[in-house]
Amino acid sequence: MEKQKLLINGERLKNTMEEFADFGRTENNGVTRLALSEEDRKARDYFRSCCEELGMSVKVDDIGNMYATLAGLEENQPPVVIGSHLDSVKNGGRFDGVLGVLAGLEVVRTLVENDIKPNVPIVVANITNEEGARFEPSLMASGILSGKFSKSVMMAKTDIDGVTFEEALNAIGYAGEEENRLGKAKSFLEIHIEQGPVLERESTSIGVVECVVGMICYEIEVTGESDHAGTTPMDMRKDALFATNNLITKAREKLSKLDNNLVYTIGRMNVLPNIHTVIPNKVVFSLEARHQDPKILKQVEEIVEELSKSPDREGCNVKTTKLWDRDTVWFDEEVVSLLEQSVKSLGYSYKRMVSGAGHDAQFIASMIPSAMIFVPSINGKSHAEDELTYWEDCEKGVNVILEAVLAMTTKEKIWRKNF
Amino acid sequence: MEKQKLLINGERLKNTMEEFADFGRTENNGVTRLALSEEDRKARDYFRSCCEELGMSVKVDDIGNMYATLAGLEENQPPVVIGSHLDSVKNGGRFDGVLGVLAGLEVVRTLVENDIKPNVPIVVANITNEEGARFEPSLMASGILSGKFSKSVMMAKTDIDGVTFEEALNAIGYAGEEENRLGKAKSFLEIHIEQGPVLERESTSIGVVECVVGMICYEIEVTGESDHAGTTPMDMRKDALFATNNLITKAREKLSKLDNNLVYTIGRMNVLPNIHTVIPNKVVFSLEARHQDPKILKQVEEIVEELSKSPDREGCNVKTTKLWDRDTVWFDEEVVSLLEQSVKSLGYSYKRMVSGAGHDAQFIASMIPSAMIFVPSINGKSHAEDELTYWEDCEKGVNVILEAVLAMTTKEKIWRKNF
Repeated sequence: MEKQKLLINGERLKNTMEEFADFGRTENNGVTRLALSEEDRKARDYFRSCCEELGMSVKVDDIGNMYATLAGLEENQPPVVIGSHLDSVKNGGRFDGVLGVLAGLEVVRTLVENDIKPNVPIVVANITNEEGARFEPSLMASGILSGKFSKSVMMAKTDIDGVTFEEALNAIGYAGEEENRLGKAKSFLEIHIEQGPVLERESTSIGVVECVVGMICYEIEVTGESDHAGTTPMDMRKDALFATNNLITKAREKLSKLDNNLVYTIGRMNVLPNIHTVIPNKVVFSLEARHQDPKILKQVEEIVEELSKSPDREGCNVKTTKLWDRDTVWFDEEVVSLLEQSVKSLGYSYKRMVSGAGHDAQFIASMIPSAMIFVPSINGKSHAEDELTYWEDCEKGVNVILEAVLAMTTKEKIWRKNF
Repeated sequence: MEKQKLLINGERLKNTMEEFADFGRTENNGVTRLALSEEDRKARDYFRSCCEELGMSVKVDDIGNMYATLAGLEENQPPVVIGSHLDSVKNGGRFDGVLGVLAGLEVVRTLVENDIKPNVPIVVANITNEEGARFEPSLMASGILSGKFSKSVMMAKTDIDGVTFEEALNAIGYAGEEENRLGKAKSFLEIHIEQGPVLERESTSIGVVECVVGMICYEIEVTGESDHAGTTPMDMRKDALFATNNLITKAREKLSKLDNNLVYTIGRMNVLPNIHTVIPNKVVFSLEARHQDPKILKQVEEIVEELSKSPDREGCNVKTTKLWDRDTVWFDEEVVSLLEQSVKSLGYSYKRMVSGAGHDAQFIASMIPSAMIFVPSINGKSHAEDELTYWEDCEKGVNVILEAVLAMTTKEKIWRKNF
């Protein structure tokens, strides 16, 4: 007869999530907990105290990342790291980021109360400023950790009040030592809300994330001529808005044929001079596209760059500028498989999927074998006060993390069927 | 042998135009002379002194309109009025408005230096705040004169610093008496730059304006759903920007078939939340259209209003709101014909045309038989520092006004071939 599986305490997870939602709770049951704000400090202090209560030692590195370590039985072994972020966007939700940190806390609580000692250390990490909502860019600290961003440049970033990241870090007392930075580790696991509608639509509990998709972001500037809306015959206009309209129509026709998994968005568009009686002389808009296959993105780039010589630009000048791109980051297949096996062993519905959104794990993956799981976002909402993931799905997700952690950190796997 | 025609002094007109351009001249040879500003006061004072030098009496009404009157030989006759406005938009040009006032001054100067006494009085009028650039709306004073706008409402209008129209009027010393308001008159003549490219394109010197076209202005609000640009599959989006793009394409297809003289413009468009990583949930845009025939405008309204149930709105909600409309104002055919005859007699190239832009004459036309002529705007530019009308065209235009004024105010027409 097989032993009963070790599971987390879903009620405790929920209560802890609600406790953390108090740090910056908004009127509409959302959260505003900008990085290095007073609310962030309170959440960090409370996180530290929760971890210390479990006998974990908490260290802080020079960019404010927190690492709570549960010692392993074997000395000097690289840890298994569970992490995400406690910061939120303005008027964000109660799940984004915080779930991934508190998942780690709940896993350790479960181990401790069951008196299970891991062979290797378990680190629960709170990575600073994932959102980039107060200090741009997003993924700031994981970017520094992985060498993608320069620390000195990031330290000088300012918020809208002119406060630098470094000043804010010192102000809340979370400037630690560089020697404490995340180093070699067995693996990095991150559970996060999907921030998309796919899992909910397919009634699937867990997404096992294979990669964070690559993306390209263009800015397209269409320049025509500003003339009087009442006195300029239609055939004498160089209307930047009508030209833009044509270009978008043509680009969409082509983009829609590339691949079903491709997503593309024109999120930002500014019209100048933006006066109802004046023909627009300039429209500037962004076009970003995401897909895991670089060949598909290359085709998108060609479609965008062809716009500058499109016959549909109505006499306007079209300038396309690639603002940036990022390659697809494939997670470590061993860790992905371990997470998949963990889900299977728990009997939850799941699918392998890609992440269209960016996460700290994508940068950390360059240092440490990493992988992620997603839990469903109701209506795909995130970065909004009505962001919602059912408690039952949060619980399932953290059980998957626990199962994977057990597989990686304990010798005695007697309570588990597989592995 | 026919007598030589009386003509204005083109050099003097040019010099006076340049003198007035000094009141608010900008770095790039434009003019910023907002209504009731210090620059406007200086221009008004100088205009007054120029008129008084000619023996004209200058009166000011309760909304700051200035009327310089050259007495007529016959007593108590209604005057012929020549007028336009001395105010400009911010960074406007040296011709818009001021040409129509100084045309009157130059006509009177020409009469006086030739010792020609008109039978009826000639009034040169400077109408306050045509532009509405400092105090909205435009055509403010002519709107009050003609009963379109409430004086008390207009007096309370504020500029961006919170100064009311009334305060500004008092501050520059141009609050006069209501009894001085423009009353019964033989006709109102306005020469103005075209503000469009038609005359220049057709190498025509003078436009004889038959009407100011009617217009409609709509605001269209497209509401979709804001979702994450990276995580939301294309088939699960309600993208307000893509929906808007479709709607504009379909509307243009229909609008372009209505009539060649129809002009339509989407001058203003705002996208929300306007972040490159977020699918837009709202696009609000204006659509205005102008045409002299109300039946055509009615068809435009139908096309716009059908957008709310368009199959191309991609699941978004579309709300169309008519912000306002205005009827076509037809000028007095007798006065229009007189202007046409005057151009013909001078041998200038001309065409009858419509005005797509609004002018004080369109409101005054409800009180006084009115008409306008246009002179070419190079590249159709106005409300811009590079606004340009060749001096030669200014001169021709003012000669047309002189010719018409002579026809209406003198018994002895011996120096003129026709009439």
